[in-house]
Amino acid sequence: MSYSDQPRGIATSGGELALIEKIRRASAARPLGRVRLGIGDDCAVLRPPPGHELLVTTDLCLEDRHFRRDWHTPESAGHRCLARGLSDLAAMGATPLAAFLSLAVPSGIDRTWLDHFFLGLRALADEARVPLAGGDTAQSPSSHVLADIVLIGSAPFGRALQRSTARPGDLLYVTGSLGGAAAELLSLQSRSASPETRSARKPSPTQPHPQLFPAPRLKVGATLLRRSLATACIDISDGLSSDLQHLCNASHLSAELHLDRLPIHPLAAGDLNAAGDLNIALHGGEDYELLFAAAPSKKIPRSIAGVRITQIGTFIHRSTKPAVTAIDRSGGRSPLTPAGWEHRI
Amino acid sequence: MSYSDQPRGIATSGGELALIEKIRRASAARPLGRVRLGIGDDCAVLRPPPGHELLVTTDLCLEDRHFRRDWHTPESAGHRCLARGLSDLAAMGATPLAAFLSLAVPSGIDRTWLDHFFLGLRALADEARVPLAGGDTAQSPSSHVLADIVLIGSAPFGRALQRSTARPGDLLYVTGSLGGAAAELLSLQSRSASPETRSARKPSPTQPHPQLFPAPRLKVGATLLRRSLATACIDISDGLSSDLQHLCNASHLSAELHLDRLPIHPLAAGDLNAAGDLNIALHGGEDYELLFAAAPSKKIPRSIAGVRITQIGTFIHRSTKPAVTAIDRSGGRSPLTPAGWEHRI
Repeated sequence: MSYSDQPRGIATSGGELALIEKIRRASAARPLGRVRLGIGDDCAVLRPPPGHELLVTTDLCLEDRHFRRDWHTPESAGHRCLARGLSDLAAMGATPLAAFLSLAVPSGIDRTWLDHFFLGLRALADEARVPLAGGDTAQSPSSHVLADIVLIGSAPFGRALQRSTARPGDLLYVTGSLGGAAAELLSLQSRSASPETRSARKPSPTQPHPQLFPAPRLKVGATLLRRSLATACIDISDGLSSDLQHLCNASHLSAELHLDRLPIHPLAAGDLNAAGDLNIALHGGEDYELLFAAAPSKKIPRSIAGVRITQIGTFIHRSTKPAVTAIDRSGGRSPLTPAGWEHRI
Repeated sequence: MSYSDQPRGIATSGGELALIEKIRRASAARPLGRVRLGIGDDCAVLRPPPGHELLVTTDLCLEDRHFRRDWHTPESAGHRCLARGLSDLAAMGATPLAAFLSLAVPSGIDRTWLDHFFLGLRALADEARVPLAGGDTAQSPSSHVLADIVLIGSAPFGRALQRSTARPGDLLYVTGSLGGAAAELLSLQSRSASPETRSARKPSPTQPHPQLFPAPRLKVGATLLRRSLATACIDISDGLSSDLQHLCNASHLSAELHLDRLPIHPLAAGDLNAAGDLNIALHGGEDYELLFAAAPSKKIPRSIAGVRITQIGTFIHRSTKPAVTAIDRSGGRSPLTPAGWEHRI
């Protein structure tokens, strides 16, 4: 990287120098914290807190894969891009130190779209107190906006929450509510299809918009780590059914999941029938809630940093297949197969 | 990130799980060094050496922008992807700790191409002793292979080489030779255009191929730092004329460049006329050599780690425009304008 360089292969287009300036402005005049040297050299230089180790995560955010310009507002695309990485840090209880954005935009992209993309990204960066410390830019080889976000955080030496450390008998908890992101995506999709409602869509980050503006659970993750509440943790990016399976596999355990305890997001409840509500909560994905294990002796608060915590199951020895057994209201047991949500982008 | 997750939106294609396995294999069974936790959790966890600070660089490597599948072999594309970031670390004298690869491939990509892409990347990673510690995968939204490489390195606290610290009177040096990468690109381009020569093209990393397999100058950078030889440094990714301008601007200096001292790569000399040779050496780009400043009192070896070092100019106070003055064999002076090389991809 560096944004100070003339981008390769796009020197003649001119527009990308403006893009670099946008990124520079997005990062300038903001406290750099642990960033000793930001944009303008071959590398950024970070000074992690003494006694901490580094956590690194990278997440692609590609148009028509992770967002759509006709469904997501530009503010939402920018917000979601950063949220993916912040949620990975939250899942390990880490404190964000710096973000790096690699961004390729098609020639002739609407400048207003880009401005608003950065507004969305900056608003979340400010909220999470994470400086944008570098990255790379290029002209996209296709008509798609292509982003890759890198988040670097830190946690006290040896204390980052992991997936592999749940124990038999631990209780299973989830933050916030489930299915909201997928439910809002359905709604965006249907609105996009009917032209008369498109102009009315002006979502704002202050309203609950779990798909457009998901809230990474950084404070919850940090509290779980600081107070040694959790034995293992993961964020729900693929959906509860998939990510619970990941947690079980990493910890070599099975789990029992109580379906009647699932905190279903208001957007996912009501319009659909009960089976539909449950389906979207189990498999919806992109909720960016935390799923964690805690010893039964730990007193887990009903809410942490204003976010509701719900106990939804139990970890058990891995004696039988399947990894996850769903238990319904009447006590009926059935295997829970990880599944993707069909209405994904 | 994590490669252990079911990739979003591509769950049904199946091919990307194979891709994740390729990446896992590319990183498995290799010494992890400072990587405490690699692929398989929400973040990777790094433990930098005590007393060191962290250096971070990200570089996009997009098909048809940074490489072309009809000009570059897959081994070359993988090698070049990693080389871009390693060269940024080299420019600051850093030691590589870990690499992260975000990779999006089009559906139906030739598996052999991907295998060889990883062979190229792995070979350079092994040579540079840098583990692949994570990243992200997705299906490309277009027919292009899209990569973003993140390199994390470390350097003793406060000692990383920077661009902004050259001083008036410092001498200007360059490693290796110039223009080779652009000259080989010209040759690949013309071979690609004539079908009868395409099948004969079997470049190997052991031959000098400055375009296909550029050699990041990690050992030179580390030596400059360890022996306190350089006052400032940058890598030549955009071309000597552009990157010398970056160095001057960052250090608020001007420079005088002696054209007759430029070490022109054998591939760039001979086929062209003298003016052409000079043009490609000045503006060619992608040579990934180091350009550095050193106090005149420092004794700079003629070669470091087997790489030739050439003194090509002097830094002076910034009293006049332009930033860089070129001096020819007969003492004639002319302003040197940074320029891109027209035969870039």
